[in-house]
Amino acid sequence: MAKGQPRIAITMGDPAGVGPELALIAANDPQLNKICSPIIYGDARILAQVADALGLDSNATRVFDLSEGCELTITPGEVSQSTGRAAFRYIEAAIAAALSGEVDAVATAPIHKEALNAAGITQPGHTEIFAELTNAPRHCMMLTSDEITCSFATGHMGLRDVPESITTARIREVIELTDIGMRKMRSRQPRLTVCGLNPHAGEHGLFGAGEEERLISPAIEQARRDGFLVQGPLPPDTAFVPSVRAETDCYVCMYHDQGLIPLKALAFDTAVNVTLGLPIVRTSVDHGTALDIAWRGEVNPTSMLRAVQLAAELATA
Amino acid sequence: MAKGQPRIAITMGDPAGVGPELALIAANDPQLNKICSPIIYGDARILAQVADALGLDSNATRVFDLSEGCELTITPGEVSQSTGRAAFRYIEAAIAAALSGEVDAVATAPIHKEALNAAGITQPGHTEIFAELTNAPRHCMMLTSDEITCSFATGHMGLRDVPESITTARIREVIELTDIGMRKMRSRQPRLTVCGLNPHAGEHGLFGAGEEERLISPAIEQARRDGFLVQGPLPPDTAFVPSVRAETDCYVCMYHDQGLIPLKALAFDTAVNVTLGLPIVRTSVDHGTALDIAWRGEVNPTSMLRAVQLAAELATA
Repeated sequence: MAKGQPRIAITMGDPAGVGPELALIAANDPQLNKICSPIIYGDARILAQVADALGLDSNATRVFDLSEGCELTITPGEVSQSTGRAAFRYIEAAIAAALSGEVDAVATAPIHKEALNAAGITQPGHTEIFAELTNAPRHCMMLTSDEITCSFATGHMGLRDVPESITTARIREVIELTDIGMRKMRSRQPRLTVCGLNPHAGEHGLFGAGEEERLISPAIEQARRDGFLVQGPLPPDTAFVPSVRAETDCYVCMYHDQGLIPLKALAFDTAVNVTLGLPIVRTSVDHGTALDIAWRGEVNPTSMLRAVQLAAELATA
Repeated sequence: MAKGQPRIAITMGDPAGVGPELALIAANDPQLNKICSPIIYGDARILAQVADALGLDSNATRVFDLSEGCELTITPGEVSQSTGRAAFRYIEAAIAAALSGEVDAVATAPIHKEALNAAGITQPGHTEIFAELTNAPRHCMMLTSDEITCSFATGHMGLRDVPESITTARIREVIELTDIGMRKMRSRQPRLTVCGLNPHAGEHGLFGAGEEERLISPAIEQARRDGFLVQGPLPPDTAFVPSVRAETDCYVCMYHDQGLIPLKALAFDTAVNVTLGLPIVRTSVDHGTALDIAWRGEVNPTSMLRAVQLAAELATA
């Protein structure tokens, strides 16, 4: 470990998924070790099992071992209450380390939402866990890739709950959080494009309940007065065409699939998830536990490697 | 006009948009004239003005002139009640011609929904106009391109109205309409992928109101029992990644932007809109009136040319 390099906690994710192998690959990646010092927050015994199964050399891996009092017997691909609880412990410990300054950033491997739920964890995902445990009510999810970057006014909720969940104050907040986050990543003021909620952005109230005029446009006008570079609300279906992508550093999306669909269509397996608005740096892979290929060495590690790289960059920005 | 070639009515669209120039370009395209006989349903005087403005040779253009009793003075880019009413007349006449067998298919240039609405037309778009005027209650919208094809369980409505509008019967119907339409286009049984409604397809009821389990899965199970090749419901954000696109002839989408966002991100300006379930063949451009570049010769005609080509193919399939 080189002195002065940022220390990145990599959480192991759900033990039954592809998290352990992703954490091992990232922690031992020569390029990443040139720019940061990775430490896996997870279960040393399971990491050794996975390293054996995959023929990975894990001798040099730094692990913050959280196996004590939590003896897991894992069948790869089978998540449960106990794998969900273990995954939560790794996150909790990594957050505590980041808050206390023992590490400079956290990069998370995938967890399984149903396992988490079975373990009695009430937050629907990483983003919400980080927000609560770091006491950051003003936060939002962002996904970034070379092709396209999106931040989100709402998160993991049913589609039916979206229209009542977006407010002018929330959109204005997400514009600001996105601007702050993207300035760090681009080293200049970013150009933001805000999407409408309804097809064709509602066509001036023809579809929907005028959410564009009542809620979204006022947030954009406020943000413009405050000096942000922001256009919209654009019709969602034409917002992601190449010409608009070329003039947009980040899209502010109204709901999960509005941004995740084009992002994964254009940049699957290479995007990184970032939580904006936290007092600590947190990045993550953009994909799930991939239970069907867990512990097989078949998972594409690109997103995990990029997540650790971005964590290191943001920790020193 | 070669004998036996399908006769394609091209509606001129909103006179103040890019419709007139698209109709002229398509009607005079040498390649299209080898496979069909195009006739513009529109306003001969306006077509002559546009041809003059753009330096197009329109002498050989066949036009079914609907200008009588409808003297229009157009400012390019300025839609109004009268341009909306005129656009509706062209559609009405083309549908009547197709129903009576005077033409074999209709390809439509873009209309402006607000102009249509100002003219007192209650249908929100082409699809609904065609469904009503051809008395086809079982119909759906499909968008097709080389990269991706999508059909839709719901159409032009606010996002808040989508969850209550999808039913098992409707999804089952759209699967069947899509299968029939795609068989004509692929000359074999198509493989269909049905998207979920909620993020992550609801994660077994964690998000949303169990629409996947209650409404979507039963439709897929019925369709499978009836011999259709259909998978799903898939999480919407991973449904459109390259590996799933490769095994999917058409996506059955729950709402407008779920399918239109990836389609326009991947195939902007080249997709064609088809209405499935009608007693006549109807195709359309996939873009709007582009008022900012109307009558300038700057519009990309690819989608219009492909719409006429597909109309000719479907008319003879």
